[in-house]
Amino acid sequence: MTAITINPIGILHCDLQTRKETPKNYDESEHAGTIEVFPEFREGLEGIRVGDTIVVLFWLDRADRTVLRVHPRGDTSRPKRGVFSTRSPVRPNPVAVSELLVEDIDDTLLKVRGLDILDSTPVIDIKKKI
Amino acid sequence: MTAITINPIGILHCDLQTRKETPKNYDESEHAGTIEVFPEFREGLEGIRVGDTIVVLFWLDRADRTVLRVHPRGDTSRPKRGVFSTRSPVRPNPVAVSELLVEDIDDTLLKVRGLDILDSTPVIDIKKKI
Repeated sequence: MTAITINPIGILHCDLQTRKETPKNYDESEHAGTIEVFPEFREGLEGIRVGDTIVVLFWLDRADRTVLRVHPRGDTSRPKRGVFSTRSPVRPNPVAVSELLVEDIDDTLLKVRGLDILDSTPVIDIKKKI
Repeated sequence: MTAITINPIGILHCDLQTRKETPKNYDESEHAGTIEVFPEFREGLEGIRVGDTIVVLFWLDRADRTVLRVHPRGDTSRPKRGVFSTRSPVRPNPVAVSELLVEDIDDTLLKVRGLDILDSTPVIDIKKKI
């Protein structure tokens, strides 16, 4: 099967600089930041409203892609398990799925809350929440 | 920003051959099928159990990547809106996110239910549901 190529549609700006300070999951986070969607994708944002919860897919560009077993939540007192049974950023294709509240929209800048993602992480997709 | 390369971790086998017969979303589907995880990723499955709901990311290899506005649910009586405010398979990076029930596990074969995805679609990630 051939490799897949993805070009980011945007980038995240926030104050989270290290994994240690970053919440493990979006449902445990009150951190806010801004998704900058690149101008060529502006039309794709039509219909997103302040107050919506959106599903955002990030490419975790600093994650280890070579490891298949991890301690859940990085807790070394817990036995290792397969990465596909966890939400660890460590996995062969480190795509994160976060549900974020849209607090403000300024053209292609979306202010969002609920971040569990490091600053400068590429954004690869945005979807409606089911 | 440089392009991202993804190698699939598996492939879906199911009886859905056309978009017309495929449910729009996993929460509207009772279709079953089998995810074949490639053997080199076997260890990553450790900890997934029958009865779990898993989050599966698919690469929609037949989706149009050039369109930024669509009719919601393909319904031409509804006005077009930006793809990022929909769940359309049409989008610049067509990664689908489905929540599927694990009905059986046989080594690297996961029988799953709730499919809204065409047969032979590449699988790029599997995660725990929050």
